[in-house]
Amino acid sequence: MVKAKIYVQLKASVLDPQGKAVTTSLHAIGYERVADTRISKYIEIIFDETDLAAVDTQVHSICDKLLANPNTEHYHFELETME
Amino acid sequence: MVKAKIYVQLKASVLDPQGKAVTTSLHAIGYERVADTRISKYIEIIFDETDLAAVDTQVHSICDKLLANPNTEHYHFELETME
Repeated sequence: MVKAKIYVQLKASVLDPQGKAVTTSLHAIGYERVADTRISKYIEIIFDETDLAAVDTQVHSICDKLLANPNTEHYHFELETME
Repeated sequence: MVKAKIYVQLKASVLDPQGKAVTTSLHAIGYERVADTRISKYIEIIFDETDLAAVDTQVHSICDKLLANPNTEHYHFELETME
């Protein structure tokens, strides 16, 4: 089994309204040292597969086809072999 | 400046319908080796602060008060000093 830990984040140039809302809320309840907040997706996929290279190829294609919007988001991931 | 990298995840005992939907979609488009998918939030908060202990305390309290639902979610985080 292999676990893929995938981060799908808005590109730095894209406004994150959900993050701005959290920053505003945090200022309102007294956390004035908060300068910025960015909210992203973190996705774990477990593969019934032992070949890391095969999983690497599949995760790239899954992100391109389903998980990330290439216009506004980028992704990166790590693979971890599970016992 | 300190960056907090915060993971807010559903507890293992809580059903993740969004993750199940992704698993089903992936099977439908041919990724049959996908065994499970869990979708979580990954939040980066930048603090205008240099004291790591002060940020650590604030992040715990921000997660408890705003970011995580203690009934269904748990969180963990890492802190990173930025140049």
